[in-house]
Amino acid sequence: MRYFITFSYDGSKYSGYQKQPKMKTIQGEMEKALKQINGGKNVSISASGRTDAGVHAYNQKAHFDLDTSITPTKLKAALNSLIPDDIYVKNVSEVNEKFHARFNVKAKEYIYKINMGDYNPIEKDYVFQYNKRLDIPEMERALKYLEGTHNFKSFVKADEEKDDYERTIIQTNLMRDIKSVNQIVISILGTGFMRYMVRNIIGMLIEIGEGKYKSEDIIKILDSHDRKCAGICVPACGLYLKDVYY
Amino acid sequence: MRYFITFSYDGSKYSGYQKQPKMKTIQGEMEKALKQINGGKNVSISASGRTDAGVHAYNQKAHFDLDTSITPTKLKAALNSLIPDDIYVKNVSEVNEKFHARFNVKAKEYIYKINMGDYNPIEKDYVFQYNKRLDIPEMERALKYLEGTHNFKSFVKADEEKDDYERTIIQTNLMRDIKSVNQIVISILGTGFMRYMVRNIIGMLIEIGEGKYKSEDIIKILDSHDRKCAGICVPACGLYLKDVYY
Repeated sequence: MRYFITFSYDGSKYSGYQKQPKMKTIQGEMEKALKQINGGKNVSISASGRTDAGVHAYNQKAHFDLDTSITPTKLKAALNSLIPDDIYVKNVSEVNEKFHARFNVKAKEYIYKINMGDYNPIEKDYVFQYNKRLDIPEMERALKYLEGTHNFKSFVKADEEKDDYERTIIQTNLMRDIKSVNQIVISILGTGFMRYMVRNIIGMLIEIGEGKYKSEDIIKILDSHDRKCAGICVPACGLYLKDVYY
Repeated sequence: MRYFITFSYDGSKYSGYQKQPKMKTIQGEMEKALKQINGGKNVSISASGRTDAGVHAYNQKAHFDLDTSITPTKLKAALNSLIPDDIYVKNVSEVNEKFHARFNVKAKEYIYKINMGDYNPIEKDYVFQYNKRLDIPEMERALKYLEGTHNFKSFVKADEEKDDYERTIIQTNLMRDIKSVNQIVISILGTGFMRYMVRNIIGMLIEIGEGKYKSEDIIKILDSHDRKCAGICVPACGLYLKDVYY
């Protein structure tokens, strides 16, 4: 029986989503719990994609197969009782065995939180602390240039080898946090993302917000297909996988 | 020279504010840093009051005396470079040596955060997770009965010996979180609070919200002067010292 789950996690104490020997990972914790539920037999979980160390998820999605049949309600309760309390399974459903949580992804939304106000120790692992004023309207204009289909080679790691660097960004948004005038939240909805792509885009936006570049420079930087032309990579703590669409 | 500081902290990794041998405490970390700044001589810090293990502060306030004279700007930078990153000094000023951060307190505001929605692992140490529906208007009415001067013996630990259990609650408020319909924030501004008083009040409000008591029962409970008549004590993680007024 194939199951499809939605789960959230606080990534701050994990070496990322993907299982690695001797490291505490989200996948590792999930598979340990699933093995217990599956009568001691190993279970492989397939998520919509990995997230890096320190990155959080509001709605990560994944599928896996169990040998035993168990109702979604019971499976949700069993999983939540076995996984650490900084991971939470929000929803479980049964799906057709043809469904694949990674291959069937239509779009993903990431958000990135930046705090320009006083450093807040309570949010240290959950927001990027940035102590300079940023030109928000200029950043918003830059963000709009990214919408559409582009080659994003300038925004992936220089040594990342891909057959195809073209991705489509469906929609972007820059919101001031309604609770705090000094916080902004940038949201990017796209058909697919390469490693570090969101954090490199946000880093570029910050350099635009600082006045080092103009918003329209982002077009040249996209066209350069050269990582060295783009900006910094921002820290993982501000990044959240917000949702995955099928 | 006497200095007055405003500081915030994430209480989740501390055994409370007050210094205790072999325990990680806010006061302990602050005094360790101050000793270094004070050329190796011990410094005693006097805060507006202690907070229990797991309780957070947005604006805790304290004073201390240094043998060396240092500008507030430099002192703020020095302190922040020496304390752990889950404590942050927001403001430093010089004050008259007659000023006392505890004795001169006029009022304090505490807030308490309750989440009735899906458990969110990202907020596990920062909100009280409550999985039942609460009758919010009834809780609001109960809260209003607490305003004014009352004997709060029913809301302190049964074995807490005090000369005087009378305290004045100046203002209360119950707000729905603007970001999430399932979160509420209760704020209580008062001239003084006894140990566990806020958490015991919130526990009582929750039992009223559940329907175990009516809002007006809170009058009888106050009048009983008996801890056993009142409700549960809620966990520390939802509690924040919001501000201190002089």
